Amino acid sequence: MTSSESSAVLDTARRAREAAALLAPLPRKAKDAALLAIADALVARTDEIVAANAQDVARARENGTPESTVDRLALTPERIAAIASDVRDVVGLPDPVGEVVRGSTLPNGLELRQVRVPLGVVGIIYEARPNVTVDAAALCLKSGNAALLRGSSSAYASNTALIAVLRDAVASTGIPADAIQLVPGESRESVNELMRARGLVDVLIPRGGASLIRTVVEGSTVPVIETGVGNCHVYVDADADLQMAVDILINSKAQRVSVCNSAETLLVHADIADAFVPVALAALKDSGVTVHGDAAVQKFSADVVPATAEDWDTEYLSYDIAAAVVGSLDEAVAHIRRHSSGHTEAIVTRSQAEARRFVQLVDSTAVMVNASTRFTDGSQFGFGAEIGISTQKLHARGPMGLPELTSTKYVVTGDGHLRDAAPTVLPPSC
Amino acid sequence: MTSSESSAVLDTARRAREAAALLAPLPRKAKDAALLAIADALVARTDEIVAANAQDVARARENGTPESTVDRLALTPERIAAIASDVRDVVGLPDPVGEVVRGSTLPNGLELRQVRVPLGVVGIIYEARPNVTVDAAALCLKSGNAALLRGSSSAYASNTALIAVLRDAVASTGIPADAIQLVPGESRESVNELMRARGLVDVLIPRGGASLIRTVVEGSTVPVIETGVGNCHVYVDADADLQMAVDILINSKAQRVSVCNSAETLLVHADIADAFVPVALAALKDSGVTVHGDAAVQKFSADVVPATAEDWDTEYLSYDIAAAVVGSLDEAVAHIRRHSSGHTEAIVTRSQAEARRFVQLVDSTAVMVNASTRFTDGSQFGFGAEIGISTQKLHARGPMGLPELTSTKYVVTGDGHLRDAAPTVLPPSC
Repeated sequence: MTSSESSAVLDTARRAREAAALLAPLPRKAKDAALLAIADALVARTDEIVAANAQDVARARENGTPESTVDRLALTPERIAAIASDVRDVVGLPDPVGEVVRGSTLPNGLELRQVRVPLGVVGIIYEARPNVTVDAAALCLKSGNAALLRGSSSAYASNTALIAVLRDAVASTGIPADAIQLVPGESRESVNELMRARGLVDVLIPRGGASLIRTVVEGSTVPVIETGVGNCHVYVDADADLQMAVDILINSKAQRVSVCNSAETLLVHADIADAFVPVALAALKDSGVTVHGDAAVQKFSADVVPATAEDWDTEYLSYDIAAAVVGSLDEAVAHIRRHSSGHTEAIVTRSQAEARRFVQLVDSTAVMVNASTRFTDGSQFGFGAEIGISTQKLHARGPMGLPELTSTKYVVTGDGHLRDAAPTVLPPSC
Repeated sequence: MTSSESSAVLDTARRAREAAALLAPLPRKAKDAALLAIADALVARTDEIVAANAQDVARARENGTPESTVDRLALTPERIAAIASDVRDVVGLPDPVGEVVRGSTLPNGLELRQVRVPLGVVGIIYEARPNVTVDAAALCLKSGNAALLRGSSSAYASNTALIAVLRDAVASTGIPADAIQLVPGESRESVNELMRARGLVDVLIPRGGASLIRTVVEGSTVPVIETGVGNCHVYVDADADLQMAVDILINSKAQRVSVCNSAETLLVHADIADAFVPVALAALKDSGVTVHGDAAVQKFSADVVPATAEDWDTEYLSYDIAAAVVGSLDEAVAHIRRHSSGHTEAIVTRSQAEARRFVQLVDSTAVMVNASTRFTDGSQFGFGAEIGISTQKLHARGPMGLPELTSTKYVVTGDGHLRDAAPTVLPPSC
């Protein structure tokens, strides 16, 4: 990287910080007006966006990119209209900023209020899906945060065009354009620079494949919210309704295979294996799913591919599933604790006691009882929109909506309150 | 570091992880019984603890440690009784684990519950105050977390004795002793090992001086909650009650100087400077406080030491304060945004509009209106106990009580719910 590219990244972050200070106290009305201006501008400037996107699409095809990836990259007038519509949906969501999370009057009469405030500057690092550019910018704006957007270099022309539209739109309503910025530079080094901008950037949210997320999590000095890798499990208990178990398995695995909340491993209680596994294998075959099974599963069909040690840790995102027979619920839990990415696990059971035990012991973002893993999703959960699904434990866990893009501060109001010099035998706590 | 010390740290973390899995589902009753056993054992084994502490105190004095630091290190029967009493207070606090933070029935009938769960393994790195060993262990235990404690090497004998008592006590109630562990090794390298134990340790909380906190924040791959550095400001507005302003200033600065919520900088609006600064200087002098003033403040008294650029960024923790005259509230806010550590800032004003503006613009953990900065404290806020004061924005900000030692998971219950294959024009979001 040239040193000018480096300072360009830091300059961007500094301008974002200044914009964030101006955004924080803005009332909802001002932010909603800017969001409506964005939605209108996206539709009005569709041709310009489509033309820029065509460059990225052509380049991707020249590079031999698989058509499924090209499809994720492509923007059509219909897709741009859908993106604009999503922005209008954000207008309808409540403003998290200013919400009083906790409040009381203390015994001495001090009024204590814990109030939601924006995080400040949010950096989002994501792969080829230019709609994320607009989604992320809209959610950051609504929550009073400045957005630093670092999309894939394969979508650089699209993102540059989109961000020009977004900046013009917010500026037209009097909000600083620097509230929304593209991180300059197409090189990997500009991502590294962003990852080290501690003090300027308040949080980084990587969205994309496992390798991107690992890189950001391990290399960043800025706090990171880990998202999205999903090695999700469906556990079929001894006392399961067979038809329900098959339906949940197939929906979890095959309704959409390329997403983080699809199932990647099936675990079956030994007591129900003879009854369930043949039915499950037939249904998976009908859905075009290849099964990578342990020895016990292999016995039921010659179609089963022997599972390797790696299979248990693999997020296939394809028509593949690992499958094993386990001796007990506790063995299923132990398998999950060892191999899961902590996203979503489901149990299918009629037993209240087993459901309760599974829920207590499984330490993942979401635990489904008699429901598909595919429900872990901000819009399915009724949050209106999500900026990603956190699979870590700090700050936010699960689908992250607008409140998860905020912090809080304590506002304490008195009329000359002083602290008593209470005698204490212990040294002070800080 | 020897490689055996390194693997000892990781072994400790692994055992903590196993203990955490057993702790997580424990009901309050079991955790409270262990806490009571701890309180009883501390009192019963006071002699043993005092004897171990005497070794640390003797070594500290041999090394020429200042008496104020020796005092923080010293344990007396009276102090041990106070520590035991604090543990009993934790018994009385509600169990955060299992609290339903959010719950609803979705339109499709799925029952959604966001439930508090322990973080898992909490590492605490702290300086010479052996009472923190017990405080931190008790708060972690109550919140269902395994505690990895890494105290100062200057308190190694005390901490070793205390942790032996704690482990015996919890084990006597059937909870694994490994729920509470001392991080082995006295060397700096064992801290580094802990900082890199990502995947085994869920969060690190450094408690101590600015240098310790900076080291952990910058070097850790485990998520860190930054605590405690306090460069706190008192801003006296043009329209302030002079007597209230003096009282708040003196209470904020001098009621206890060695703590993070004491004031380190005074900012005075120019319009009130002639009336206020002489009174403030006299009161500060009476309290034994040295003032490091800017040119405008220096004019009022020959006692004022000229402030250097460094003074504005200094957490004195002593009878010193920096002082400046500012032209406006916005100038005060700009000064605070530039120099504050984001802990606590106070405004003294009769003006509702100025108070509102200060609260909106100041981006710190706590903003006091007509109250002393000294109130930012878990027990003052009514939280019962605190494991530290977070000065960062992610996860927890401000005094951290039991709820801040938890994460959440979503529990979703259905009766065979499947996700519809809703047509969408946009690519999937993960």
